[in-house]
Amino acid sequence: MVTETDKAIEDTISSHLKSKYPDFSFVGEETYMPGTPIGPEPTFIVDPIDGTTNFIHSFPWASISLGLAIDRKSVVGVVYNPFLDLLYFAVKGQGAYLTTRPGGSEFSRRLPLAKSPQPLTNLNSSLVCVEWPAAREGPNFDVKADTFRNLTASPDNGGGSMVRSLRSLGSAALNLCAVAAGQLDLYWEGGCWAWDVCAGWCVLDEAGGLMVDGNPGNWEPRLEERTYLAVRAAPSGQKEIVEEFWGAIRGRMEYEH
Amino acid sequence: MVTETDKAIEDTISSHLKSKYPDFSFVGEETYMPGTPIGPEPTFIVDPIDGTTNFIHSFPWASISLGLAIDRKSVVGVVYNPFLDLLYFAVKGQGAYLTTRPGGSEFSRRLPLAKSPQPLTNLNSSLVCVEWPAAREGPNFDVKADTFRNLTASPDNGGGSMVRSLRSLGSAALNLCAVAAGQLDLYWEGGCWAWDVCAGWCVLDEAGGLMVDGNPGNWEPRLEERTYLAVRAAPSGQKEIVEEFWGAIRGRMEYEH
Repeated sequence: MVTETDKAIEDTISSHLKSKYPDFSFVGEETYMPGTPIGPEPTFIVDPIDGTTNFIHSFPWASISLGLAIDRKSVVGVVYNPFLDLLYFAVKGQGAYLTTRPGGSEFSRRLPLAKSPQPLTNLNSSLVCVEWPAAREGPNFDVKADTFRNLTASPDNGGGSMVRSLRSLGSAALNLCAVAAGQLDLYWEGGCWAWDVCAGWCVLDEAGGLMVDGNPGNWEPRLEERTYLAVRAAPSGQKEIVEEFWGAIRGRMEYEH
Repeated sequence: MVTETDKAIEDTISSHLKSKYPDFSFVGEETYMPGTPIGPEPTFIVDPIDGTTNFIHSFPWASISLGLAIDRKSVVGVVYNPFLDLLYFAVKGQGAYLTTRPGGSEFSRRLPLAKSPQPLTNLNSSLVCVEWPAAREGPNFDVKADTFRNLTASPDNGGGSMVRSLRSLGSAALNLCAVAAGQLDLYWEGGCWAWDVCAGWCVLDEAGGLMVDGNPGNWEPRLEERTYLAVRAAPSGQKEIVEEFWGAIRGRMEYEH
């Protein structure tokens, strides 16, 4: 679903960035050419509206997602939700922040929001974000739907992992920022593109979060991996909960690159 | 999951309301006595924290939900999300409103937010909110999980209804208010209690929304029905989409009263 607004925002952003940074590349959801991999040169990677379905329905969980990658790694991220006036931003090595304006005065907090995040113990006490796939058939649909059931049902009922609960919010960039803030423990995704995750990835990194592959076994996913698992900052338990989550996935997601 | 904060908020609210309205009854989540039905007398019905799991995880989609029922019908509703500073309220016959403070100045809008809501056409173009059940086994779990699959999968893949997407946000009161605002088309629920829905129900009613039973066939659910389906305001299509949704439910939910 491409809206006129998507295109208009991407045009505004790309013309502005291209005039200020003429030597940088630009990749946007609306102008992306399939089969063109992101190169190592400095590249702005932009989703003009992340959470398009929410946007179309006026559900206020949507954002503008602006990332900068160098050597195919996210080094700057800015995610802004104009409906709730939430601005997340991060620069590599300089921390991640959330700026809000309660009562009209600007207020920035470093992420994660908790001064002393709790350890991650197990899926049982974890709030996990997932999204229903846009494609409604094929193996990727089944991997997600079967895994959701496995994550929720009791062992006697075809499941076993029993996460505390699942959330589905509809914006990859804001989901990553919520994990960075420590408001969600995990976000599991398959099918996203680099522009959905580039900005949020830097915010997550700088908040002490961890990004691994959404398919089991790969601790260092590429920007264009298309399958991701984000974990919040914690003094312990990040790698253990990744292993536990990977063990709960039913099948393997396969997306084109 | 009961937090100390839940109890403290309910104590504050109930002692305040009881001193101002000594002849009214009071039902709160924390002090509810199982097996005590709500009577016809004016009754405050309160959830001190709706979205407890979100609250525990600091995910900012939680609210205080204050309802007043007379003759077991919701006639006043106030739902406040203090984390995002969103105040929804309604009084029977006087409309529903959302008050926010963008830039610090208070701003009230009548609900639904759209001046001319679009017609409801079919599930295919609908954004539908559902919640994963807290109980992880038994027939009610299967009804929900099987229905979620039916709502999302293609007909070739064991499904058929193909809603635009599903959202799971974790607060019944805020979900009802989002339907009242027109930001979600439908919200389907089973397992909620009167305090989860009382306040939001009045907001939904006054915004032109429709509340029916979450099980097929009953157009006039009781406050304590425990199964609900909320539909946003629309110039046409409300009853047709209820029938379509009821047809997509796999099985029948059964909860104690």
